[in-house]
Amino acid sequence: MQTDATPVDIDAMERATRSPIVTEQDLRAAAARLTGRVLDTPLLPCEELSLAFGCQVLLKAENLQHTGSFKVRGVTNALLARRERGERPPQAVTFSAGNHGAALAYASGRLGIPATVFVPPNAVAPKVDAIRRYGATVIQGEDFVAAAQQFAEDNGALLLHPFDDLDVIGGQGTVGLDVLRALPWVDVLIAPVGGGGLLSGIGAACAALSPSTRVVGVEPVAARTLAHAVASGGPTSLPAAPSSMADGLNAPFAGTYTYHHALRHTHQLVQVAEEEIRLAWIDLQRATRLLLEPSAAVGLAALRTGEVAVPTGGVVVLVLSGGNTDLASLAAASRTA
Amino acid sequence: MQTDATPVDIDAMERATRSPIVTEQDLRAAAARLTGRVLDTPLLPCEELSLAFGCQVLLKAENLQHTGSFKVRGVTNALLARRERGERPPQAVTFSAGNHGAALAYASGRLGIPATVFVPPNAVAPKVDAIRRYGATVIQGEDFVAAAQQFAEDNGALLLHPFDDLDVIGGQGTVGLDVLRALPWVDVLIAPVGGGGLLSGIGAACAALSPSTRVVGVEPVAARTLAHAVASGGPTSLPAAPSSMADGLNAPFAGTYTYHHALRHTHQLVQVAEEEIRLAWIDLQRATRLLLEPSAAVGLAALRTGEVAVPTGGVVVLVLSGGNTDLASLAAASRTA
Repeated sequence: MQTDATPVDIDAMERATRSPIVTEQDLRAAAARLTGRVLDTPLLPCEELSLAFGCQVLLKAENLQHTGSFKVRGVTNALLARRERGERPPQAVTFSAGNHGAALAYASGRLGIPATVFVPPNAVAPKVDAIRRYGATVIQGEDFVAAAQQFAEDNGALLLHPFDDLDVIGGQGTVGLDVLRALPWVDVLIAPVGGGGLLSGIGAACAALSPSTRVVGVEPVAARTLAHAVASGGPTSLPAAPSSMADGLNAPFAGTYTYHHALRHTHQLVQVAEEEIRLAWIDLQRATRLLLEPSAAVGLAALRTGEVAVPTGGVVVLVLSGGNTDLASLAAASRTA
Repeated sequence: MQTDATPVDIDAMERATRSPIVTEQDLRAAAARLTGRVLDTPLLPCEELSLAFGCQVLLKAENLQHTGSFKVRGVTNALLARRERGERPPQAVTFSAGNHGAALAYASGRLGIPATVFVPPNAVAPKVDAIRRYGATVIQGEDFVAAAQQFAEDNGALLLHPFDDLDVIGGQGTVGLDVLRALPWVDVLIAPVGGGGLLSGIGAACAALSPSTRVVGVEPVAARTLAHAVASGGPTSLPAAPSSMADGLNAPFAGTYTYHHALRHTHQLVQVAEEEIRLAWIDLQRATRLLLEPSAAVGLAALRTGEVAVPTGGVVVLVLSGGNTDLASLAAASRTA
């Protein structure tokens, strides 16, 4: 996900008025498109957390997804949906120094569409390497969001937004479909929130198939973009740039689509502090033997605050959003744990 | 797995003559006992390795098993099989500073049998903590193998060997059953070798259900106990204590049962060097987003030597034996990768 500010879309107000919402039909179409293209990742029961919280805790391990995050679902769905609608962009482009960039590189490569990813000057080397390894052209520099937009205009390329795109939201929503298909009953479904694409898709899936499931979004205090949008009555930039160790969640503002999805389908939004994220990150890896990025641990951090109502003996699913981390940071975080 | 020398069993010769082998019936009985007690862990396709080796590489993720290793299968099967045979030991005991000790602690706790685990003076704190957390009594000291044997005699406790036990081998063999049930065809199945319990069980499963599957065992050069046994015509101590970074494989000698299982059912035994293990360990975690212990990576290291014949387009399964590692060692190993 990008870590720089994106200019507010000129027709944001217009879209906000219409505020289209992903439907069950959209989700089922997305699931059909993704069959055989993304993994139905394991839904892992976690004994240690189940004992700790007195309920059945299961983990949707999207860190085991292609490219190591759920992002490949949204991107793949968007590329295929555009194609179905007769769009034939000669190439795809985006702005991202993280999982969305890698996902676009991967999905474009699989579909034979050239891709270019604009990344900020401070992008970390392993993530840039991953984007390149998946076959995209990487262009690094200041004003990378504007540069991507200019590139799209100049080349007739499809500019694929990391989260504020209905097809992307629909693709992320298949995480929710997978969970609801695998489990007969889910009391609480907890998802990390950056720009809100994952939460929006999951909320749409629960609204369509399991309205009794409580949908909980979790943001770092240091990147509380969605809470800020709700407080402000609409998506707007945070007063200060987001700065969470959960780098995948450092979206500078919520999207217009995602804001309206969240308002409609999210039952609770929880904020967690950096120290809570760090401890949850280390403990979750120890408990699961999964390699995770910090963003994937905010759900556990939220459970630990005690703010999320969990029915005794109930079923709680945490979405582990991704596993792209570097081992040195992980070791450093564990030393003080 | 214990890292100290165990005295040779007095009736080793007698057992060697009989050399009983785990049968399909034993394996199916083990599978029935373990249903609902251990996880059928995910069998994960790995795109990156599949592309690298020109075949379909899948990973049996036993790091996601209860207690973080396959060991809980063998221990659980042994405790239940003994009970079925009318044995009612008041308690269980073993010698292990690693995954076997944690597995016995866990399984005994679940079955309501008090357990004591003797560990060596140099046992690492996190592993000892895990054994305690699972509810066993830990006794640390020199001569921990002899002490465990004495304890068993004094208390009428069941002494559960880490690998040289037919029920333990039968339980580990359910890893093979799981794999063969999930995949219609497996060309090569690769397992790490310490004392040989996992390899023995998997070999028995393939012999029973899929004789065309090549069973490959992999040992560190620094802990080549099974190769040494084969060269010596029987299980015998290594000239020097095993010293691999793959600490789970540092068995000082192969078992009598495991030696005979290996002779009968293993198609190839490969040795890998420490540097090959280190690189495979880091790369495998990056490629899979799984937290693994070094022992789990010897299969990839073996594939990379080129010594394992892999049919183009064929199906290769690597058993990832466990995920109990400490993050500091992992970071240290990655820095020089």
